[in-house]
Amino acid sequence: MSMKTVGILGGGQLARMMVLAGAPMGLRFELFDPASDACGAQLAPLTVGAFDDREALAAFAAKVDVVTFDFENVPAESAQWLAERVPVHPSPSVLAVAQDRLSEKTLFQQLDIPLPPFADIRSRDELAAKTAEFGLPCILKTRRLGYDGKGQFRLRSEADIDAAWDALGAQVEKTGLILEGFVAFQREVSVVAVRGSDGSFRAYPVTGNWHVDGVLSASVAPARLSAAEHDAAIGHARRLADHLQYVGVFALELFCRDGELLANEMAPRVHNSGHWTIEGSETSQFENHLRAVLGLPLGDTRMLGHACMLNWIGAMPDAGAVLAQASGHWHDYGKQPRDGRKVGHATLRDDDAGALANALEQVGGTLDRQAQVEPAVHALRTL
Amino acid sequence: MSMKTVGILGGGQLARMMVLAGAPMGLRFELFDPASDACGAQLAPLTVGAFDDREALAAFAAKVDVVTFDFENVPAESAQWLAERVPVHPSPSVLAVAQDRLSEKTLFQQLDIPLPPFADIRSRDELAAKTAEFGLPCILKTRRLGYDGKGQFRLRSEADIDAAWDALGAQVEKTGLILEGFVAFQREVSVVAVRGSDGSFRAYPVTGNWHVDGVLSASVAPARLSAAEHDAAIGHARRLADHLQYVGVFALELFCRDGELLANEMAPRVHNSGHWTIEGSETSQFENHLRAVLGLPLGDTRMLGHACMLNWIGAMPDAGAVLAQASGHWHDYGKQPRDGRKVGHATLRDDDAGALANALEQVGGTLDRQAQVEPAVHALRTL
Ligand SMILES: Nc1ncnc2c1ncn2[C@@H]1O[C@H](COP(=O)(O)OP(=O)(O)OP(=O)(O)O)[C@@H](O)[C@H]1O
Ligand SMILES: Nc1ncnc2c1ncn2[C@@H]1O[C@H](COP(=O)(O)OP(=O)(O)OP(=O)(O)O)[C@@H](O)[C@H]1O
Repeated sequence: MSMKTVGILGGGQLARMMVLAGAPMGLRFELFDPASDACGAQLAPLTVGAFDDREALAAFAAKVDVVTFDFENVPAESAQWLAERVPVHPSPSVLAVAQDRLSEKTLFQQLDIPLPPFADIRSRDELAAKTAEFGLPCILKTRRLGYDGKGQFRLRSEADIDAAWDALGAQVEKTGLILEGFVAFQREVSVVAVRGSDGSFRAYPVTGNWHVDGVLSASVAPARLSAAEHDAAIGHARRLADHLQYVGVFALELFCRDGELLANEMAPRVHNSGHWTIEGSETSQFENHLRAVLGLPLGDTRMLGHACMLNWIGAMPDAGAVLAQASGHWHDYGKQPRDGRKVGHATLRDDDAGALANALEQVGGTLDRQAQVEPAVHALRTL
Repeated sequence: MSMKTVGILGGGQLARMMVLAGAPMGLRFELFDPASDACGAQLAPLTVGAFDDREALAAFAAKVDVVTFDFENVPAESAQWLAERVPVHPSPSVLAVAQDRLSEKTLFQQLDIPLPPFADIRSRDELAAKTAEFGLPCILKTRRLGYDGKGQFRLRSEADIDAAWDALGAQVEKTGLILEGFVAFQREVSVVAVRGSDGSFRAYPVTGNWHVDGVLSASVAPARLSAAEHDAAIGHARRLADHLQYVGVFALELFCRDGELLANEMAPRVHNSGHWTIEGSETSQFENHLRAVLGLPLGDTRMLGHACMLNWIGAMPDAGAVLAQASGHWHDYGKQPRDGRKVGHATLRDDDAGALANALEQVGGTLDRQAQVEPAVHALRTL
């Protein structure tokens, strides 16, 4: 095992954290990214190239034993081309499903995973008709290439139909469009789970998530769910993974509304809502992804106490407030600050939920980020 | 903090594990080692040079914000020379004490830390006289440059005096010699602790250690000690650290004999007996060392359950047996196999001591290393 080299398509923070999880096990890494300043390159060799540059991909493939992703929007044809040369996990066919909200949601439906109503939208008239059918509010999204809430338009009244079509109608040929019923959820949660090529399956405790402007802001694990909801969420993830013969870590994002779970989307990779597993569980999502991809036994996903992850967006705050907490852990991805960019995160962990809430409140106060910590504090106090 | 660069003198596995602990926090590293294949260089830039090569040291110093060590036998003059250019932690004067068993043991004595009898030895006659005074058995050691039990001669009878002098007498000018009374200990333990520049101090639970041929073979934390012994051990470590105004992680090795603790030696660096802290405690010794060296708040040293570390010496065994255990963690330093070389380790952790003992027994069986796991299994079953 020690001499295996893992190739990662995409060299961002997810790749970086995979390198940090795999290096202790003696793994080597090769990264591939269009950007020469990809932050993973601080820790592993980087091939710079476009994701459809066959020459660069061939050079990359020659250096690695297996390929995986930190970025799911790699062209599925590139992944397929690589898969003819070297094992690729998860498989390019899974990537293709996850890249298209329409095929993803059609699959959920087929697997009896509940989800909000959705429809493929090809014209302004279809948009108007489906909006009338689903009832408002609705969300119009690009089928492909959306991330962090980008490429979305929320329709609150009939008057928004024109504005939505003006904003996204031009994408209909390039990325396709999908309309979804809006879910007035009380909570958002995600299942981060891992499946091995032998069918072994492990899920981390379901995580509660809060988004700001479509970007993850904070996560708390375990989420406040009934045992039945918890089991249903993990059951959905498992059916999905088994159906896809998935290999590696993935996330399934769900809305909770009145005790009902509705699927939003899956991410075919390690996931931001699983970053707390680095300190909060026996085996991190990054290590488990590598174990799966390499055909090694999966590691234990049990968690120790309660954990909260806070995302740092745009720029890093001062580390002192977090490091002063008994179980504060600091993650800085080594990126240049930029508006809306995920540049780092912090994880706080404690055996006791109340102590964790207090620690979070202190961090929020010192950093003047009360609004960011508040939902997590509230969730921990009302477990 | 994010842009700080830490320089490490020595680029072996300890440097490697520091890089892996510091990179998540956004730290950069520069390593310095005489060997171009130092295993830390797989993860951070390496300056190759002798430890007394001023030109190479100057180039290295220019690239870093602070210097620390993975190797304590760097010439104290080189450390001193660097300290005139860049902060060095722990300080060169501490290094000088720890490099010489005689000054180290004299300091223990001065701080009322109990230890076996010892004497500086300058001639065969002094050796004979002191052997008679201490009583047999005794151990003759080089004062400087010993490690992993190298440079030692055990005297069992008077007839061994000539053999000991033949073996080590030639070192009297180069490294000096010290004679120590032999301690018929029941157990060996170590305190791994960290002290910040503000005087803050945290100790990990005392660890029990087993050596084979003078090299650490297995560790179990927490060690089986009475509360009084535990507190005494940590008290000794604290007096030592405060006296030295120590900054960083260090280890104090102690013998336990009939409820009495006798100091063996201190290591002014992260320590092999603290490797279990990576998975077994809230903050690893590597992260805490970096926090101390950078003047950041120290992290929590509480441990979660019970942990056992097994050293891999010479060559890596197959990873499967360890990874198949619920809380088995694998560490491969990426070194070429070589007799007697520390090439990796495994850590197993469990909330329950009995479950950990069972897991260790399975690992020992599968890898045919029953002798290595047996003392740890026994200790865990008789806690
Ligand atoms: N149908 C919906 N009903 C209610 N809220 C929604 C709906 N779809 C999206 N949202 C909100 O917008 C957020 C981002 O949406 P979505 O997950 O589709 O975006 P994305 O661009 O794919 O983001 P990610 O980077 O998480 O993949 C969701 O987490 C949720 O808060
Ligand atoms: N005075 C003593 N009485 C009994 N055993 C001893 C004594 N000195 C050393 N030993 C045994 O030899 C081992 C190694 O000795 P010591 O710690 O002095 O060696 P070292 O070369 O400095 O090793 P290290 O790499 O741990 O620094 C000890 O852990 C202990 O098992």
